[in-house]
Amino acid sequence: MRTVHITASTEYDVLIGEGLIDKAGELTRKVVKPCRCLIVTDDTVDELYGDRVQISFSYAGFDVTRFPFPAGEASKNLSTLSDILDAMGAAELSRSDLVVALGGGVVGDIAGFAAAIYTRGIRFVQIPTTLLAAVDSSVGGKTAIDMPFGKNMVGAFHQPSLVITDTDVLRDLPALQLSNGAAEAIKCGVLNDPELFALLESGDWLDDVDAVVERCVAYKRDVVAGDEFDTGNRAFLNLGHTFGHAIEHLSHFTMLHGQAVAVGTVMAASAASCPGEMIRRLADCMKANGLPVRCDYPVTDLARAALSDKKRAGKSITLVLPDVIGKCRLEKVPVTDLPRWFERALNTQEALEL
Amino acid sequence: MRTVHITASTEYDVLIGEGLIDKAGELTRKVVKPCRCLIVTDDTVDELYGDRVQISFSYAGFDVTRFPFPAGEASKNLSTLSDILDAMGAAELSRSDLVVALGGGVVGDIAGFAAAIYTRGIRFVQIPTTLLAAVDSSVGGKTAIDMPFGKNMVGAFHQPSLVITDTDVLRDLPALQLSNGAAEAIKCGVLNDPELFALLESGDWLDDVDAVVERCVAYKRDVVAGDEFDTGNRAFLNLGHTFGHAIEHLSHFTMLHGQAVAVGTVMAASAASCPGEMIRRLADCMKANGLPVRCDYPVTDLARAALSDKKRAGKSITLVLPDVIGKCRLEKVPVTDLPRWFERALNTQEALEL
Repeated sequence: MRTVHITASTEYDVLIGEGLIDKAGELTRKVVKPCRCLIVTDDTVDELYGDRVQISFSYAGFDVTRFPFPAGEASKNLSTLSDILDAMGAAELSRSDLVVALGGGVVGDIAGFAAAIYTRGIRFVQIPTTLLAAVDSSVGGKTAIDMPFGKNMVGAFHQPSLVITDTDVLRDLPALQLSNGAAEAIKCGVLNDPELFALLESGDWLDDVDAVVERCVAYKRDVVAGDEFDTGNRAFLNLGHTFGHAIEHLSHFTMLHGQAVAVGTVMAASAASCPGEMIRRLADCMKANGLPVRCDYPVTDLARAALSDKKRAGKSITLVLPDVIGKCRLEKVPVTDLPRWFERALNTQEALEL
Repeated sequence: MRTVHITASTEYDVLIGEGLIDKAGELTRKVVKPCRCLIVTDDTVDELYGDRVQISFSYAGFDVTRFPFPAGEASKNLSTLSDILDAMGAAELSRSDLVVALGGGVVGDIAGFAAAIYTRGIRFVQIPTTLLAAVDSSVGGKTAIDMPFGKNMVGAFHQPSLVITDTDVLRDLPALQLSNGAAEAIKCGVLNDPELFALLESGDWLDDVDAVVERCVAYKRDVVAGDEFDTGNRAFLNLGHTFGHAIEHLSHFTMLHGQAVAVGTVMAASAASCPGEMIRRLADCMKANGLPVRCDYPVTDLARAALSDKKRAGKSITLVLPDVIGKCRLEKVPVTDLPRWFERALNTQEALEL
């Protein structure tokens, strides 16, 4: 088992290893005294792992109830949040009790947010069951729901008490789910870790998934430690996301987050006027992991969708632009210039025949 | 103008004085650079002060929109929260923009909560228009909404950037609203400030309302500064609230918060076996301010309603019990003992013919 220790407003461990699902209760008991706990999950994950996790927590002495909601990003809204909060009330959770978020990014985001606001904050444990959640959303304390006017527009900063990542669960994921997570891992490589990028470039790294998760989590730890509340360097983690969120939005969320980030990252490199060779290498890495590298939305639509992004602070927007594989820079640009950046990205991609 | 400076996770001022409503924009500009701002208020307050506040902020350079919702505690729910968040989205507020909470406790609690979770937190300014909000809920950073399973069960800690209390507005309040706030002021007196209690005892202190607000805010500041996240001494502020919330709940919120706290405070003194003379003095003070001192709910109903209180941490509950006017103690009691405490309170009140 690998352990990454996170130091934020609260300290906690990310545990990565085989067979951890069945030890989840026991591992949790080391940091949270047995209490009432509500397992929040989606119906797909519930069917696969719900019983095993519940048994593990019960066996460890927790008083467990379980609340599954319909799987999918469409559930990440106020209505599901309301249902989760009602389930917490019905389970009579008090301030000293626990939420267990068992699932992918949607479950982690919404269950974490419910934990953040129930009685103004109770503890929660994350058990990410997708690669995307394992490498990205389960670390950093960002929780959120989507609103009609934008993705992740409502949420809170709330750190988990523990993150438990079972690599057997990740290895059992369908290919599409793996590529969805690979996009965020590739992003970490582009930002900071050429070795990780090289490992992912092969497209054949499932045997090393524990190392992939560990490197991503450790990198995110370092960034978040310096900027828990997202006012500075944490902006680097948005590589591919300003473009990506726009694409995701225009696709009406039929495109997976990782797919949108993959396209967004290649677009960012293209907009940044990186050498053609590097952009091509980046695109090839995405493709090797089953990811798309371009989209067909018009520039004006992309720019408008990007501006509904909450990171926009008034009249400017901060773009993350790759210099080389392993190093990026932040560039604050006027929102009025955004169409020009999208145009440059699309033109470069056109020229490179990506 | 009186200023109380608050030091919490963020520092801010509480300004208390005549005619501040019309200077609100100008006063805010000293701490928040002009930006987009949404004034959240209820329809009653909106009619009285909405235009004046909007004009003041516009004149100071803010880009202002206004969102009134139906007045009353019944509005403090997820549905109104959703409407406020939608209004924030429609106003295209970004992370660096502002919410102005113009109104009583309900407006402050729900607008503050909306500000706490919109893009994971934007700034807000409180303009309390009731005495209750001025002396209590506008300070301390607690925001919340009610849920079907309990009052204030969902919320966040989120400090305002500024609190502006116009004493002319307070002097224009109907008598019922003044007594509602007086209950919390009397509570502060019982907890810490015999002089404040003596001032309030007369029932005739409207000319000194600025001093009343200042003393209450300063006391609350001191308590909150030592315990922002409500894990220790902040529990003192719950004097009268464990009993009071139960009463409020059983009345289906037809009883005002201050009325319930008044009864609850007298019950706490009665349960604590204070000298009869002191309990009578406390009850007389409540009555002089138009407040009730007893309720007719059965002990079992009261105990059950009190146990749905979120402060319950597992098997025990912390009661705040007066020793003398100006000093109280905390007592952790098993939840199973709670009916006995209610019974003792009711018996003492019966014996004193309150």
